Amino acid sequence: MELDFSKLDGLIAAVIQDYKTSRVLMVGFMNEEAFRKTVESGYATFYSRSRNKLWLKGETSGHRLVVKEISTDCDRDALLLKVEAIGPGVCHEGYESCFFRQFDSGEWKISEQRAYDPSAVYGS
Amino acid sequence: MELDFSKLDGLIAAVIQDYKTSRVLMVGFMNEEAFRKTVESGYATFYSRSRNKLWLKGETSGHRLVVKEISTDCDRDALLLKVEAIGPGVCHEGYESCFFRQFDSGEWKISEQRAYDPSAVYGS
Repeated sequence: MELDFSKLDGLIAAVIQDYKTSRVLMVGFMNEEAFRKTVESGYATFYSRSRNKLWLKGETSGHRLVVKEISTDCDRDALLLKVEAIGPGVCHEGYESCFFRQFDSGEWKISEQRAYDPSAVYGS
Repeated sequence: MELDFSKLDGLIAAVIQDYKTSRVLMVGFMNEEAFRKTVESGYATFYSRSRNKLWLKGETSGHRLVVKEISTDCDRDALLLKVEAIGPGVCHEGYESCFFRQFDSGEWKISEQRAYDPSAVYGS
């Protein structure tokens, strides 16, 4: 059984979930090569749509994602990765999860504190 | 602040997570109208890429998703919906979650039992 990369021009969505807390940390996209690298290395590797190249999550920050479990869905066009997140947060804006904004009364509101100072990790 | 529907031809990925158990149940796609209908109705509504139309999840099965909380990510191009799933399972193949296959020793293996008989719900 093969994954179906045909629906999004060679990509599939990959949901990243903390394997202990079950918090959803981010959504990335993988092409076939990124998926293979993820399996081979044990670290989540995505395809960056903005930079058009493979992207080992944490290559700059050190905040890698150690893969504990991989699932796919009924249509084989999405992935769910349970991971151990190295470091204080996966989001380049300094939050534990990229999903730090909640919809509240018609507006998006930041719903938590930063877990680290992104300028200290990525430069400003 | 607006969601960014530009990266996937008018769509964004929407991760559906059980608000009690934190299990990831499915990934769907929403266009701007599907997002608006979701907010207005309180039921998760997607854009079906195969049928090219709005799709109220549960319109056939009755297995609707009652939205409890909506978050977006740093790039505003993905959504996370915490939901109460009505019925025994969200997957049209009869499973609680669409992510019922795990990657194990290079193969995808079904890792759980069906929660209901899909032919009784959808016809065979």
